Parts: sequence; structure tokens; C-alpha cells
Amino acid sequence: MASIIVPTADPVAPTPASTGAPTITLHWLEKSRSQRILWLLEELKVPYEIKTYKRNPKTSLAPPELKEIHPLGKSPVITIGERIVAESALIVEYLSEHFGTWLIPQKWKAGLEGQLGGETDEFMRYRYFMHYSEGSLATLVTVAAITKGIKNAPVPFFIKPVTGKVAAGVGTGYLNNNFTTHFTFLEEQLTSAPSGGPYLCGAKLSGADILMSYPLIAAPSFGAPLSKEGYPKLWAYTELLKESEGFKRAVKKIIEVDGEYNP
Amino acid sequence: MASIIVPTADPVAPTPASTGAPTITLHWLEKSRSQRILWLLEELKVPYEIKTYKRNPKTSLAPPELKEIHPLGKSPVITIGERIVAESALIVEYLSEHFGTWLIPQKWKAGLEGQLGGETDEFMRYRYFMHYSEGSLATLVTVAAITKGIKNAPVPFFIKPVTGKVAAGVGTGYLNNNFTTHFTFLEEQLTSAPSGGPYLCGAKLSGADILMSYPLIAAPSFGAPLSKEGYPKLWAYTELLKESEGFKRAVKKIIEVDGEYNP
Repeated sequence: MASIIVPTADPVAPTPASTGAPTITLHWLEKSRSQRILWLLEELKVPYEIKTYKRNPKTSLAPPELKEIHPLGKSPVITIGERIVAESALIVEYLSEHFGTWLIPQKWKAGLEGQLGGETDEFMRYRYFMHYSEGSLATLVTVAAITKGIKNAPVPFFIKPVTGKVAAGVGTGYLNNNFTTHFTFLEEQLTSAPSGGPYLCGAKLSGADILMSYPLIAAPSFGAPLSKEGYPKLWAYTELLKESEGFKRAVKKIIEVDGEYNP
Repeated sequence: MASIIVPTADPVAPTPASTGAPTITLHWLEKSRSQRILWLLEELKVPYEIKTYKRNPKTSLAPPELKEIHPLGKSPVITIGERIVAESALIVEYLSEHFGTWLIPQKWKAGLEGQLGGETDEFMRYRYFMHYSEGSLATLVTVAAITKGIKNAPVPFFIKPVTGKVAAGVGTGYLNNNFTTHFTFLEEQLTSAPSGGPYLCGAKLSGADILMSYPLIAAPSFGAPLSKEGYPKLWAYTELLKESEGFKRAVKKIIEVDGEYNP
């Protein structure tokens, strides 16, 4: 494969304006972080195909076929025309820009276009959470998943096989302390959200909410202390995400594909 | 603090055009991932201040003062005017956009502006590595750092105190396998880089290279098998980053601030 991101870039590749949009294929490793990309696709209401990959029943590792799509063997990956796009946050960014700009908050305040400090609060939050989700929160959820020794948890493949041994080393006290720090932060972020929320970036659903849905919805399964009493706004926010029509359609698809929905 | 990202957004805040740029302050936790942000600031040639925070000598944890800047108590964080910006990738994005657009590859191919597939290879790689660095590679380096039980390693604070116990559970075989997968991928990416490289996104240094510098330069310290013989292009690339004038100026500053440079 010549180049992962744009393997055979073609300046005259078909575009939606000329010959119709190329097919979007979601390469779907069962029980993986691909779930939220399915929500994104449902939210965008674009046609797409799912190509499924089964984990090795003994090791829970991804099959080698996934490496033929992307050499890191990770999921989700999407292919669209000649492009192969990996990293969940980039997939959200890229598909939103081309098929659903309503999922990206307006960037500039009127009259302050291009100026330092001219970005809207909504946009700065969007950019922040696009990085925070995978760079910070998902990492904590991953450590929690390892600690719980949960089989088939969507943890990075490189740490997977050592689950049992590592789990013994991590105290739940540390995890609880750090979930508390993050949930307190998120509760405050929802309290101070532009226009009063209810979403992280303000009154409207954004790609950042879709990205954040995985670590937030998965966290309680791994013992994270996310209670209605402790974090009322964060709890309500998570429920709001789960109740959205696009999310519910995605869950139906997940059950079709995986046979179960197990965040 | 009302809002972390834009605590007191002010539509008439001073801008560079009117009253000169507001001061950029880098909140610097010693021996942390802040090092590459220092490189960025040196590369941008903007005036900036450093506010240092010492780790607790017994626990290696960040001091509580850092939480007054950002409730997660993480470093790096920058303040610029009324804005507080966290997450390394967002800091690179934000500062490059306002002070060094030459660090962001051109987005569109001529004549294909806004079209699906119209992005340049350079730009798609830039966006990919802005997410891959923290979402994938830095996580692997973090696990390696934990395994080695290295004190003061820039690992996330939540896992820090359990270093010794966790380390016992992670086999170096798994780490080596996975470093091999990532380094092979990066070697191939450099081989197929636009214009023949030598940078990840082509002929010119980009913000993605600055972001990637931390996990790549730190990896061998934690036992990652990054050799000149095994990965000649990746090795040469890492040397190229270390030899850049901006990087060398940053190392000097690091030694002034931390008393040593210890990637």
C-alpha cells in the first residue's frame, strides 16, 4: 500500500458534483470503538456499507484481514473512493466536513473572522473535545477496561493479551479518583456550556458529542462511578445522547451486525 | 472557573492588529510532554513566558497549583489573553493557525476546493498525525514508560502511582511487537511521503512533526526497538527533528528550566 491516508490520490477522482458520491465503507471490527462511527453515518443520513471483521475467539485480537485495509490493524477505518481514513476523530472531522457541516459549530464570531480570540466558544470546545476524547478520557476508560479484565473490551490491541496480569496491578482507588476528576470537569463543562447546553458545545449536537459518546457510555460498564446523583448534568447528557434517533438507529444496526449491543 | 476553554470570552478582546498580541504563557510541568510545545513556540518565534510547576518529589505528581489553571491538572496548558488551551494537539493547531500558518500544509488541490477527495495528501496526513500522535503512538509509549517503571516519565497522572505494580504485568514481547507494527507503519509513511519527504507530510516541517517528536524521541528511552538499521528512514527523520534549529533552541530552554533535558 503506497500511502495509508490517500493511497492513490487522483486529481480527477469522481466527486459528488460530477458522478455521485463514492461508496463509504465502514470496516467494522466486532465489539470495537466503531460503534460511534455508525452513529455518525446514521446522523449524516449518507449511504454506506459495513464490512465486518470477527475477532479471534481465543485471543480477542483483530483478524489479519483488517491489516490489509490499514497496517495498524485498528478499527474503525473507513474507505471512501480512493481514500482510507483511520483515527476516530479524523473520521468524524472528515465526514462531517463533507456530509454534515451542521455537526461542526460555527467557527468565527461575526466581525472577528481570522482574529486571535475571534473563535466562538462553541468552536473552541468542539476542537478541544475532538482531542480530549481520545487523548484523555478514552485512555482512562481503557485502563479501567484492562483493570476489570473484561474480555472483548475495545482496548488497544497491543495491551489486550496482558489483560489478566495488568489488571491485578491497578487499584480501583486510583481509577475512581481519576474518573472523579474527569467527571467533575465534564459536569462543570456542561454547566458552563454555551447557550446553556445541553450538548458539550452548546445547544446543538456536534461531532464532538458523537466522539465522546463511546468513552462516556462505556465507562460505567467498567466500574466508573458515573451516577445520576453524583453528576446530574453528565448523567442527563449521556442519556440524551443515548436517546437520540441516530444513536438508536445505530444500536439497531449494531445488533444486526454483532448480534448484541454491548457498549 | 466558568469555562475551561474560553473562560470569559470577550468579543472586544485586544487582538494583534489593534493593541499587540496578548502574552502567551506556557504552563510547564517539569519533565512533561510540554517540551514539544516549547519547540513550537521557538519555531513560531513569538514572545512567550514560561510558568513552571515542580512535581512532588515523593509521588512525582503535578502540584495542585496546576489544577488552578486547568481542572485536570495536566501539562501542557497555554494561556493566551483570556483563553486557556489544553491538549497538546489543540495547542499546536491553535498557535499554528494564528502565528505560523506555514506549519499547516495547504488544504486543497487547485480547482478542487471543498470537493470530496479534493484535499491534498499533505493536508490529510497532517490531520491524521495530529490525531494518531496522542490517540495511538503516545499511548503505546505511555505503556512502555509504565512497564519500565521509569520515575518522572511523562505518563498520565492517573496511572502514575501504580507504576511499579503495573510494570510487572506487561511483557516486553508485546511492547516490542507493537512498536514493530507502528515503526514499520511510520517507515512506510516516510517512504511514501508526498514530494519524497523528508517530513511526514512532505517536503516541509509541519505541526504534525512537532507533535510526533515527543513520542518518537522518547520511545527509545523506554526500550522501544527504534534502530538505525531496522528503520533507516524513521531513524533519519527523528535525527532531522532533533537537529532542527527550533528544536535545539527548545532543548536549551528546557535545560534552563528543568536543569536537564531528559526526553
